[in-house]
Amino acid sequence: MSLANGRRYLAIPGPSVMPDRVLNAMHRASPNIYEGELLDLTASLWADLKAIAGTQHNAAIYIGNGHATWEAANTNVFRRGDTAIVLATGRFGEGWAEHARQVGVTVAMTDFGKSSPIDMARAEQALRASPDARAVMLTHVDTATGAKNDVAALRRLMDDLGHPGLLMVDCIASFACDEFHMDDWGVDVVIAASQKGLMTPPGLGVVFFSDKARELSKSSDLRTPYWDWLPRVDANHFYMHFYGTAPTHHLFALREALTMIMDEGIENVWHRHTKLAQAVWAAAEAWGKDGAFALNIKDPGHRGHSVTAMRLSGNDGTRLREWCEHQGGVTLGVGLGMAEPDSPEAGAFFRLAHMGHVNAHMTLGALAVMDTGMKALQIPHGGGALEAAARVLASA
Amino acid sequence: MSLANGRRYLAIPGPSVMPDRVLNAMHRASPNIYEGELLDLTASLWADLKAIAGTQHNAAIYIGNGHATWEAANTNVFRRGDTAIVLATGRFGEGWAEHARQVGVTVAMTDFGKSSPIDMARAEQALRASPDARAVMLTHVDTATGAKNDVAALRRLMDDLGHPGLLMVDCIASFACDEFHMDDWGVDVVIAASQKGLMTPPGLGVVFFSDKARELSKSSDLRTPYWDWLPRVDANHFYMHFYGTAPTHHLFALREALTMIMDEGIENVWHRHTKLAQAVWAAAEAWGKDGAFALNIKDPGHRGHSVTAMRLSGNDGTRLREWCEHQGGVTLGVGLGMAEPDSPEAGAFFRLAHMGHVNAHMTLGALAVMDTGMKALQIPHGGGALEAAARVLASA
Amino acid sequence: MSLANGRRYLAIPGPSVMPDRVLNAMHRASPNIYEGELLDLTASLWADLKAIAGTQHNAAIYIGNGHATWEAANTNVFRRGDTAIVLATGRFGEGWAEHARQVGVTVAMTDFGKSSPIDMARAEQALRASPDARAVMLTHVDTATGAKNDVAALRRLMDDLGHPGLLMVDCIASFACDEFHMDDWGVDVVIAASQKGLMTPPGLGVVFFSDKARELSKSSDLRTPYWDWLPRVDANHFYMHFYGTAPTHHLFALREALTMIMDEGIENVWHRHTKLAQAVWAAAEAWGKDGAFALNIKDPGHRGHSVTAMRLSGNDGTRLREWCEHQGGVTLGVGLGMAEPDSPEAGAFFRLAHMGHVNAHMTLGALAVMDTGMKALQIPHGGGALEAAARVLASA
Amino acid sequence: MSLANGRRYLAIPGPSVMPDRVLNAMHRASPNIYEGELLDLTASLWADLKAIAGTQHNAAIYIGNGHATWEAANTNVFRRGDTAIVLATGRFGEGWAEHARQVGVTVAMTDFGKSSPIDMARAEQALRASPDARAVMLTHVDTATGAKNDVAALRRLMDDLGHPGLLMVDCIASFACDEFHMDDWGVDVVIAASQKGLMTPPGLGVVFFSDKARELSKSSDLRTPYWDWLPRVDANHFYMHFYGTAPTHHLFALREALTMIMDEGIENVWHRHTKLAQAVWAAAEAWGKDGAFALNIKDPGHRGHSVTAMRLSGNDGTRLREWCEHQGGVTLGVGLGMAEPDSPEAGAFFRLAHMGHVNAHMTLGALAVMDTGMKALQIPHGGGALEAAARVLASA
Repeated sequence: MSLANGRRYLAIPGPSVMPDRVLNAMHRASPNIYEGELLDLTASLWADLKAIAGTQHNAAIYIGNGHATWEAANTNVFRRGDTAIVLATGRFGEGWAEHARQVGVTVAMTDFGKSSPIDMARAEQALRASPDARAVMLTHVDTATGAKNDVAALRRLMDDLGHPGLLMVDCIASFACDEFHMDDWGVDVVIAASQKGLMTPPGLGVVFFSDKARELSKSSDLRTPYWDWLPRVDANHFYMHFYGTAPTHHLFALREALTMIMDEGIENVWHRHTKLAQAVWAAAEAWGKDGAFALNIKDPGHRGHSVTAMRLSGNDGTRLREWCEHQGGVTLGVGLGMAEPDSPEAGAFFRLAHMGHVNAHMTLGALAVMDTGMKALQIPHGGGALEAAARVLASA
Repeated sequence: MSLANGRRYLAIPGPSVMPDRVLNAMHRASPNIYEGELLDLTASLWADLKAIAGTQHNAAIYIGNGHATWEAANTNVFRRGDTAIVLATGRFGEGWAEHARQVGVTVAMTDFGKSSPIDMARAEQALRASPDARAVMLTHVDTATGAKNDVAALRRLMDDLGHPGLLMVDCIASFACDEFHMDDWGVDVVIAASQKGLMTPPGLGVVFFSDKARELSKSSDLRTPYWDWLPRVDANHFYMHFYGTAPTHHLFALREALTMIMDEGIENVWHRHTKLAQAVWAAAEAWGKDGAFALNIKDPGHRGHSVTAMRLSGNDGTRLREWCEHQGGVTLGVGLGMAEPDSPEAGAFFRLAHMGHVNAHMTLGALAVMDTGMKALQIPHGGGALEAAARVLASA
Repeated sequence: MSLANGRRYLAIPGPSVMPDRVLNAMHRASPNIYEGELLDLTASLWADLKAIAGTQHNAAIYIGNGHATWEAANTNVFRRGDTAIVLATGRFGEGWAEHARQVGVTVAMTDFGKSSPIDMARAEQALRASPDARAVMLTHVDTATGAKNDVAALRRLMDDLGHPGLLMVDCIASFACDEFHMDDWGVDVVIAASQKGLMTPPGLGVVFFSDKARELSKSSDLRTPYWDWLPRVDANHFYMHFYGTAPTHHLFALREALTMIMDEGIENVWHRHTKLAQAVWAAAEAWGKDGAFALNIKDPGHRGHSVTAMRLSGNDGTRLREWCEHQGGVTLGVGLGMAEPDSPEAGAFFRLAHMGHVNAHMTLGALAVMDTGMKALQIPHGGGALEAAARVLASA
Repeated sequence: MSLANGRRYLAIPGPSVMPDRVLNAMHRASPNIYEGELLDLTASLWADLKAIAGTQHNAAIYIGNGHATWEAANTNVFRRGDTAIVLATGRFGEGWAEHARQVGVTVAMTDFGKSSPIDMARAEQALRASPDARAVMLTHVDTATGAKNDVAALRRLMDDLGHPGLLMVDCIASFACDEFHMDDWGVDVVIAASQKGLMTPPGLGVVFFSDKARELSKSSDLRTPYWDWLPRVDANHFYMHFYGTAPTHHLFALREALTMIMDEGIENVWHRHTKLAQAVWAAAEAWGKDGAFALNIKDPGHRGHSVTAMRLSGNDGTRLREWCEHQGGVTLGVGLGMAEPDSPEAGAFFRLAHMGHVNAHMTLGALAVMDTGMKALQIPHGGGALEAAARVLASA
């Protein structure tokens, strides 16, 4: 007998839950790609994407995943031999840096570990150490650690130091979940992907770039026809937006998802994510009062609002994940890059996403299933977690 | 800002949540209705339906809703002027009786009120008072009150008294949710509908009948071509199963739903419903320790496992329902027939369904949203409800 | 190797091809049935249905198939022992009469055979022979024979004779396909079903009725709670429209289908069916110049516009049907009631539907597949059929 | 009034018609990307893809479109400054060459025009002129011109001349439509995309490569992390197959499409395309007997089987396309690269696809709509086209 049979909740940090409306929008005949509705629909996407990013500048859409936007951003920005300052706060920051290295960029890496955001003092050292770096790269929220960085503060620091570099931010885990203002915060390049806050199946990436980045990209020698962002934003013909055949069904899906976000209002979307994250943290605080349960990021101000990295001890994280999936109907995310695979603590880590198409029922239900799982598995934990979460949402 | 935006959970007692697999099965081109796959698929339905009902006898499928099965059952069983003993434990028992009256049956009604199951002593009086009644009618679980009756005990009583009537049971709210054994319990007619435990959109009804009922029906003078169950079970041609065009898309849906039930195992399905109901009751018990919260049926042994009728006071039930829908993403059922519409307590009643495609996440999440709503609305309630529910499921 | 693998075309006279938009509309979560969008959407259906029927009077929607509307119409109109004049032009006219007989109505049948419309002289005899008949029943277009009757002329005849009966018309095969004006033509009862011109899966029936029929129905003694049309049109509560749970997913489907019809304009829909039917007839005329191919109805003015009944000789109809299905991707309809099952000509008959969601490509393609099949099977046939059909549509 | 209202047929050369089964497979909740069914399903894709390509070697799947596979192939194969022999027979051959140029490859181009396949004598000259070229690039079937090349003959020529280059073939338009044997024909690199013969929405590309190509790629200096094919085929972790998040919904779609192809049998699929193409050509031959109608490729042996490029004169191609779409329900493809956009003949060219999920009904219907359109627009054309097409399929 399993208590999981029913509508399952996939609470991993991407792909997120696809709304029925989005799936329905994809369930349709192929459109003409030379004229008609697809062209009009596609033309409407950019304005909404830019509104979410908080920019009035450029947005290129790629058929690709999140890593594809790493390559799109790096090949447009860098010249072989350029230096990139990387401020890493988790596995995905490291990954983006590794990509840069592989295409011939010199990476000046500062690693802030797996449980902390960027420390501004060390960031200052990094900036001073590479005054000619072409760009500074960081993640807004790292999907693996859940650490959120203060992007505006970093730009202020760069400005204070007169650092000329571009500011490049990976918003894949936070886009359309955490508040973000690309232009106001002085960000030059933002990357995002479809399968998280944008509630669209994996397969689309978006790269936003400032006019400064656009200008600089013309001197990049890493650009290829597929990644070159200029024809994608300046397309004379529809197919140039996608360097070939458009991702027809994904575009219909994205249109529907953007309409949902616009109808709710991006500020309301952010606020919803904020409250749901706070509910998760309140439960976590209660659980943590007894036993090994702990959140990865201590300071709530440094936690992303779309995914929370958690731990128990020993293999209890994995045991709990498996119970939740097979008995509770909730699939939690694995811990990613938090411990070596063969470490005795490898099975301690896991993640709960609360990203995109997510509401009080889904998040409270996930917390309740986790609470039930800990009880079933006799994993020690503090009491009162669920009502603590309920209290947070009751005051929303 | 609303915390409800995300995947909504419709927790009303029917229609229930349709599984993705069921909706996908309906999303298909029209089939040929003269030969081919539809005929084979349809032929496979009866065995599974009968297995769920616990009968080896007859099952007729109707295009219709639950009320349609009232008419199907009544017109096949009764002759104009026959007497029916009705043992009512809620609005739906009354409704079935009213139908019988409208087609010319004399109803000998015993009403057990809105919060109690059948009392066997009073049932005995009713049986003795109408020794020639053609049938005894009752609901297994009344969707409005949530009261569950001991069908096997009633049959034993009839046998003890030598009452010759048919035993007719409305299982609409309980079918494929609560344990039921039609043949073992000596039931002659069982009615069910698609949109509850069968996880299929409204539009199909099923009437199971014993060979005794089948024989008796031949003398009924209320049968019409549409309701006559004999051609439906003895069809020489496919169209006779449905007296005309088959409900093609519903049949594909029902096939998928039955496959899900068979794959899980009906005993496991019953057990899942039992545990989820117990979790709801455990939360209810905690809530009830402070304030007005109360379950409609006192004795857990008399509560159905697919829907729980609840109350607060004044208009708080309605307030809570509205909060849960608009802020929490959970739609609770209205109270049905528990108070006069203009009574000051009309807004006190509501229902939580846990029926069909339902799991720990969905039910615990619904309870958590209710808990949150009571906090948000400052409706007094006892604490510890969610962990009480979690403890029940942890021991499943 | 089969040339049928691809998108199949089911060209049987119901269920017809369901539009993608209709299937998408059904692919959705269950709605609340007590308040909200379903209620608003449902409220919008009646006006559109009435506009298609050409009436300003009453429309009751039933969960049921076409035969269900026979029972709905008959039980509301007739009293036990009433006389009904039936003017039959095919199997479905006979079927409706048989239903009337089974519920206790005396049927005065005039059978016009399987290949002719109503002959007004014989109709006059029938009317004169039963001056007190409660109603006159006929099919607008019989799905089996394809014969279309002149309903307005029949009403004029009734008026000329001062016949007081209701005029009841089965429009199941023609509704939203062939021009029809219920009020202008003086029709009292019209029955229709979802799965043909309404492009919605089988499971809904509609009965339209005049105020005269409404008034008369109050004296009917055959009404049952399920069929009684008065509460369905005068519902105080939403559930009364459907005597219980609403057919939620079908209502969403019907709404989408009606929107498609309204957007196209019913006159345009009729005209499209007219031209496509004429294209079929033009091909048929050419085929018929050599070999056994023939249409069932000689006079084009007496042919329905949504389905054409055809024949070859011997078993060639069945051979052609099977070739078209297995090699061409087109499923033709079987002949229905045109010959005894064991007659040597039983396999001669078949039907091609051009009903509902149908366009030039679908119909011309079906004709081309038939032409190919006759060539492949060496069934003699006249040449030039496809270009004859093309010429008709070229002049549309 | 439009005769197009009904199920539309998009007969452009990609995206092709998506089967209902494929769309249904995409209509599902997001899967876990770390374990479970997605991983098993994905593991099953490669064998089927390789079977269709006729190779036992390597296959890398990319999130991307057809042009993406140009970049994938070029960046894995070439070193900056390498020479590529390009044998172009249409716009897509030119496009692939242009891509090579843009990434720093020296292109030795031989252009065979827009209406001819590769001429082996001129190919020999090209091979002799660049004996050290790293690769020879060509299209199997060019989507724009419809020209098909004899790949095996080209390999024999290379072998005869002892040319050491890799043989790279763009099969985007022909994959799973035209017979192909990668290993037997000595092909080193094959590129394909999802939206044509693979009947899956745009968004996936596949690159097949021989072990020789695999070995050579290690010395390429154009590879980037996204395009590098080695980790994609040697993935230690699931995410490495896709350099990041897998294209979840596309993988479900592709699985279903491959199952359909495997169930039919690739030889049967090829044969179906052959016969449907021959039907199109037979119609074309008849039309061409009067007026300007002509096929682009004279010799049937040099025509691809999935798309046929056609012409009328002046603007008649565009007029016919528009009639077919707006009056007939068939969307033909525009002519691509056959004339300068402002040439008086720019509107003469168009294409009819018969690719992927296509059967006799669809293709014959499209031809019939074209025939009707020419009649409606009074475009001169020969008669008997449709029966000529029918005769071809009758003998299939």
